Amino acid sequence: MVLDIKPNSIFNLQSIHQSVSVRFNYEILFTNNLFNLKNSTLAQVITTDGEKKPKKVVAVIDAGLLQYWPELPKQLAAYTKFYAEILTLAVKPMIVPGGEAAKNDRTLLEQIHKLIEAAGLCRHSYLLAVGGGAVLDLVGYAAATAHRGIRLIRIPTTVLAQNDSGIGVKNGINAFGKKNFLGTFAPPYAVINDSAFLTTLSDRDWLSGIAEAVKVALIKDARFFDFIHSHTAALVSRDMDAMQQLIYRCAQLHLEHIANSGDPFEMGSSRPLDFGHWAAHRLEHLTNYSLRHGEAVAIGIALDSTYSYLLGLLDWSNCQRILNTLSALGFTLYVPELAERSSPLEDSRCLFRGLTEFREHLGGELTLTLLQNIGQGIEVHEVELSLYKKAISLLQDVENRQTLLTAS
Amino acid sequence: MVLDIKPNSIFNLQSIHQSVSVRFNYEILFTNNLFNLKNSTLAQVITTDGEKKPKKVVAVIDAGLLQYWPELPKQLAAYTKFYAEILTLAVKPMIVPGGEAAKNDRTLLEQIHKLIEAAGLCRHSYLLAVGGGAVLDLVGYAAATAHRGIRLIRIPTTVLAQNDSGIGVKNGINAFGKKNFLGTFAPPYAVINDSAFLTTLSDRDWLSGIAEAVKVALIKDARFFDFIHSHTAALVSRDMDAMQQLIYRCAQLHLEHIANSGDPFEMGSSRPLDFGHWAAHRLEHLTNYSLRHGEAVAIGIALDSTYSYLLGLLDWSNCQRILNTLSALGFTLYVPELAERSSPLEDSRCLFRGLTEFREHLGGELTLTLLQNIGQGIEVHEVELSLYKKAISLLQDVENRQTLLTAS
Repeated sequence: MVLDIKPNSIFNLQSIHQSVSVRFNYEILFTNNLFNLKNSTLAQVITTDGEKKPKKVVAVIDAGLLQYWPELPKQLAAYTKFYAEILTLAVKPMIVPGGEAAKNDRTLLEQIHKLIEAAGLCRHSYLLAVGGGAVLDLVGYAAATAHRGIRLIRIPTTVLAQNDSGIGVKNGINAFGKKNFLGTFAPPYAVINDSAFLTTLSDRDWLSGIAEAVKVALIKDARFFDFIHSHTAALVSRDMDAMQQLIYRCAQLHLEHIANSGDPFEMGSSRPLDFGHWAAHRLEHLTNYSLRHGEAVAIGIALDSTYSYLLGLLDWSNCQRILNTLSALGFTLYVPELAERSSPLEDSRCLFRGLTEFREHLGGELTLTLLQNIGQGIEVHEVELSLYKKAISLLQDVENRQTLLTAS
Repeated sequence: MVLDIKPNSIFNLQSIHQSVSVRFNYEILFTNNLFNLKNSTLAQVITTDGEKKPKKVVAVIDAGLLQYWPELPKQLAAYTKFYAEILTLAVKPMIVPGGEAAKNDRTLLEQIHKLIEAAGLCRHSYLLAVGGGAVLDLVGYAAATAHRGIRLIRIPTTVLAQNDSGIGVKNGINAFGKKNFLGTFAPPYAVINDSAFLTTLSDRDWLSGIAEAVKVALIKDARFFDFIHSHTAALVSRDMDAMQQLIYRCAQLHLEHIANSGDPFEMGSSRPLDFGHWAAHRLEHLTNYSLRHGEAVAIGIALDSTYSYLLGLLDWSNCQRILNTLSALGFTLYVPELAERSSPLEDSRCLFRGLTEFREHLGGELTLTLLQNIGQGIEVHEVELSLYKKAISLLQDVENRQTLLTAS
């Protein structure tokens, strides 16, 4: 008996082409007071898996959040008790430091893995990540790599995490001094955005998350930029309705991009929505993370908008409008780290090394998003460093009021 | 200006449903003498990415292989020099221990990550993993998690890796004493099976990889089982043509299952082709990996086939045929670890704890594949431990020739 396998040359048998298609479905839910016993959102998310109950749940909570919500672990315990037929808290929640510290300490990853193992979680169990974007990134990475993937429910508690980092398909931690050097593409099981958590954010955290909304509006949706522009005062005065709408639309635009880019795991050359991000990542590093991600993104947006203007892509009036809006939202548009080591490239603190790191992280050719209009991004593959230096000077003048911007 | 976002209850805004589809394509190529300068297979694989050249390549090689192929690093260097317009060896190859040791030492993972970082690899660079299944699993995990995914080219060098573990979508390492506790689902960029490497395998490694072919034949393809059965003598006497056909068909069946299961990343309840594997994983652990994976799988197949017979699912004549074939291939069907601690379950060395670990790793309900005929698997969700104990006794008798099997 012989199978029908024919060699096609001296070296080769015919090759087998494998094509694997994977579909990931998840809901982004918007709620208020998630752990109120009358709020069945979380229980419903777990019920809809249609499997045997109760399901094991382990929670990891951002320490920064507990300052304002000290009762959270108790509330969670009461909640799981109330919905005991649906979910069981397998162990006491683990508390991890918030902010970039969560991503810089490799032992935290190991501790979460240990917790998953000790609690006997399986791929059909749930890991709840409650906190800001950095904590979600850390917990997401742990969830994606234990048993090759525990179900992750993200509960983002900051504006930034609710409208951007917490709703997408990425996770990661920092390593070798490089942001997100380790991580995977792994969609969550569900995301639950609870507006109650936004009420206790510091003004700085409330505002800084708006930068990602400005970013996505500028490259995708002029109407959304108009919304932000006309709601600047409301947003600054912490109007929750305006903020909810901003988060919703920003999330929607990010999700649409991920679903429709044709390459959600960025294996080829399609890009994430990273306008303004090459400088932002670099500035976070150069300022030792004293800048919030959103604050750095605002500067990155200001820089790349100004560069787009100097390159002749964007009108000065539109560039002014962008810089004005960012200023009105309370963002600083210039920090000394932009200029003080803007050359030579060999200098380990040179801003422009961010371009190389950006290319290396994403792979392939350097691709920057610039603006040709408000609401309209354009990709370029070359940069003129001299023009970038001019853009930096211009931003410095704007910040020092040496260049006056027309009100608009 | 107002966006059109309406709340749908006191707690909730309308949710956003996200659906992300990702397609992974890769080739499994069959070749002979991969690093012969006249063999352009590897260069072609890298050429077809259609991007700027030359691409950076880093190789990680199984130390076990170098015993028989000490010139391999030199050959690889010569090969990359010859095809310098297409690929560049970014650093000297890293050598890692082969076998399960590769998956038990956490520092190896970190070393590979460090190498990727030092070589400045990006997502469009290539990591070559050359070796047995364990090394491929380790390197695959490192590749999947650096920059959220470096391109991985697997070059499996054992029968087992060429027909099963090296062609699929998984990677992983062991942690907390649990096999593959850490890992991801991440398809490779390409797989290149070089038959030259098979010529230097020990008889033990040559034969043990056949167990996975028996496994997939038994649950999927009676004709393929007939092929194995009728080629037992050829396979045992190291006939390369028979082995190539076995590897090819086995790979094909595994790949078809992954592509057509509807759930290649095992997020729901679909199962990998793991007939005989619950006991196999456990026996590897209980024997401190003195059993090869394939040898343990052969025992697992014998056990689950016998259990299928005792349960009334499988004819005794078919069961005999299976046990005979495994014996003729040189497999031992019984080891003392099967019986000596077959109870109580609380005993840390009890075989049946493998059932719990199996369920926990895969998640959800316990699902075992049994046989209702040769070529026809069936899933069950309950086990009768007393029948399993009978099956173990029967295997012991068969192995001691106290139960004589009819020749077939």
